Amino acid sequence: MRAAILAVGTELLGTDRLDTNSLRLTESLERHGFDLVTKAVIGDGEAAIAGELERLLEMADVVLVSGGLGPTADDVTREAAAHALGRELVHDAEVLAELEAKFRAYGMDMPAVNRKQADVIAGAELIENRRGTAPGQRAEAPGGATLFLFPGVPVELEAMVETALEPWLAERSGGRGRQRGMLKIASLPESTVEERIAPAYGEFGREAISVLAKPGEVRIQFWASGGDDERRERLEAIARRLRELVGGAVFTDDPEADLAGVVGRLLAERGETVATAESCTGGWLGQRITSIAGSSAWYPGGVVCYSNPLKERLVGVPTELLAEHGAVSREVAHALAAGARERIGATYGLGITGVAGPGGGSEDKPVGTVHLALASPAAGAGEGSTSLDHSTALNHRSVRFPGDRDRVRWMSTQLALEMLRRHLLGIDAAPEAATGAEAGVA
Amino acid sequence: MRAAILAVGTELLGTDRLDTNSLRLTESLERHGFDLVTKAVIGDGEAAIAGELERLLEMADVVLVSGGLGPTADDVTREAAAHALGRELVHDAEVLAELEAKFRAYGMDMPAVNRKQADVIAGAELIENRRGTAPGQRAEAPGGATLFLFPGVPVELEAMVETALEPWLAERSGGRGRQRGMLKIASLPESTVEERIAPAYGEFGREAISVLAKPGEVRIQFWASGGDDERRERLEAIARRLRELVGGAVFTDDPEADLAGVVGRLLAERGETVATAESCTGGWLGQRITSIAGSSAWYPGGVVCYSNPLKERLVGVPTELLAEHGAVSREVAHALAAGARERIGATYGLGITGVAGPGGGSEDKPVGTVHLALASPAAGAGEGSTSLDHSTALNHRSVRFPGDRDRVRWMSTQLALEMLRRHLLGIDAAPEAATGAEAGVA
Repeated sequence: MRAAILAVGTELLGTDRLDTNSLRLTESLERHGFDLVTKAVIGDGEAAIAGELERLLEMADVVLVSGGLGPTADDVTREAAAHALGRELVHDAEVLAELEAKFRAYGMDMPAVNRKQADVIAGAELIENRRGTAPGQRAEAPGGATLFLFPGVPVELEAMVETALEPWLAERSGGRGRQRGMLKIASLPESTVEERIAPAYGEFGREAISVLAKPGEVRIQFWASGGDDERRERLEAIARRLRELVGGAVFTDDPEADLAGVVGRLLAERGETVATAESCTGGWLGQRITSIAGSSAWYPGGVVCYSNPLKERLVGVPTELLAEHGAVSREVAHALAAGARERIGATYGLGITGVAGPGGGSEDKPVGTVHLALASPAAGAGEGSTSLDHSTALNHRSVRFPGDRDRVRWMSTQLALEMLRRHLLGIDAAPEAATGAEAGVA
Repeated sequence: MRAAILAVGTELLGTDRLDTNSLRLTESLERHGFDLVTKAVIGDGEAAIAGELERLLEMADVVLVSGGLGPTADDVTREAAAHALGRELVHDAEVLAELEAKFRAYGMDMPAVNRKQADVIAGAELIENRRGTAPGQRAEAPGGATLFLFPGVPVELEAMVETALEPWLAERSGGRGRQRGMLKIASLPESTVEERIAPAYGEFGREAISVLAKPGEVRIQFWASGGDDERRERLEAIARRLRELVGGAVFTDDPEADLAGVVGRLLAERGETVATAESCTGGWLGQRITSIAGSSAWYPGGVVCYSNPLKERLVGVPTELLAEHGAVSREVAHALAAGARERIGATYGLGITGVAGPGGGSEDKPVGTVHLALASPAAGAGEGSTSLDHSTALNHRSVRFPGDRDRVRWMSTQLALEMLRRHLLGIDAAPEAATGAEAGVA
């Protein structure tokens, strides 16, 4: 079954607002196995709305419209829909009485402009509006498609989706819906993920799996249809196969989970902690960690040592080291990580130093160059780590990230967290970075 | 001139993502007097994209497309656009060489999948991609409309909008456009702003001015049309009047400016610096400050003292003070601010401690309770400040923010910066907080 969504409102064609109602509508459509083929936004012109509705009613089995049911002169969705369906608008005395009662309940007389909210498409079913004035409507088009009209106010639409849309969709899906699974990866570029999972396209179908990249994260999404059990089993099978193909790079199968939360759960399970020493990221790593509720159990804190003197004062990076190697160097990243671990007193220390740009780059250390280090107890040191003394082992990564200042900084926090995650799970110590672009990983 | 926007990508028809590129494109269209008549989202199917393009090219004078220029199998915008225009796709050896060079610059071989990014619509102009791989394209449709293809990655699109779209629009607008002005406020609730600016609605027209609230910030937007001079003069007149009405609460008239950058400029002008000691915000204030390029001139760094022992160890908050008043208290905020200023060695110190939630609240200190303090040289102390010793003066604010964990934390960083801004400008010392909601400020 094919669905289309239309949001009506000139304000949604401006620079400040996006149609977010479509996300709520999409959620219901997906759960019941309807396929959203397009969504569009159109201004408050009656002819334009009618034309768009005619087009969508030909393309889809169900068309969900939000907005334009208000009382003002520019609310013309009712008129446009009646026109597109070739029906009359009928003034409904019962609806009018209900509208007047709603206003009376608030001690007000109904303004005359609200009268038009009692206009109903001939033959349409009304949908009660528990949170506002204008009722929704459901009508059948001559070609067989179904049209729903909802108000644009999100809380009003939300209530109608639950009481009217969901039952209608459920009846038509016959218990067969479509469900999505997701695996998230922070340590491989999109093209590498694409190459590795290629066999799964053949096994499960090209349209069942898609790869999405954003800076520092690659998501593999996959879908299954059918009855509850069938769907679940298929999603599990796809996920299992994808994990075989990409390995330990997957950090979560929870679409909502942030890498910081995943790392936090691993630390909390072990009763371990991490401290941070940030230069170019300026506190962003700490911000991400502390955005996780309960992070105080595994994060005592950190330092933002943006200036060189502070690198010495707060975490004991030797002045000579800074002079000899420069602030952006493997040695200083090491000293930041080890210093954070020791001075703050945590199981692990993460140190980040880099050239975030736009200024500060050199031929030797161009913008985007970042050194990251993880200090850990020597006994638990992974492959390729350097033992500094009897108590501390160090892993190090040097990268060059593409993109602007905030992107370089964001990806640095992501890679730092991924280094720690891999260390905690005993996965190879040198993750690649998922840049979210095709190029750019040193 | 009529414009339409099409975002391509099956992921934009899901429940997680919205097409935000259209906002950036709309801004450019508005500035040059183009009228956006519709925008739509369509999945990654070649036939569907081609059909939609044909429709939009008939409706509008310019059609702006984002997405589907990547290297993967589902990136088919190039093919669809060629089809809609009745043109061939031509493999461009020069583009291919540039792509390969970009990968080489990062020490990688170009994956074979990226070859298709060198396919160009016959007769199209190429648009350089400075921040990624796929170039954009501009082509004319047989009916006279112009088609632009941009990548879906926002930073890549953004750069191309500046270098290619803006000049093209400017040339066609003949200097008559609609222009927007903006004033941003961090220290008044939306309803207060609305009340204060009410006279301006009468003077300039209700539709010329609008107020938009988001957490921690209220924006007043206003528009003027006409030729360059006419537009500029009218925008200046509106801005002048609005500033009269809302006073020193306006922190910038630059839509892109962040409060951290405004504070930074004030500090840099004075040759002064600020240090931070963050508890509940966990580094977010440092993150915001260091997101401003050049902030090292006025920000040496800070500490994230999430645990109580660290509050003592890193900035010398006395254990007795923590025991007596609790970590979330005026006294501890004072000690954090003063400690940051002294230990880190800056002109000013900002201290933040609060209950971000969802746990940790009490009857006495419910979730959302935040104490903020500003430590400054005693001679420069403002009204209502407390002199701690001969060298440090302290301002303090206690608030209760509404909303979830991240909102409480965000608004805390915003209010801390606003306290410093007001202090630097000698404006009254106790700003109200712009909550973006009507309630919630203690």
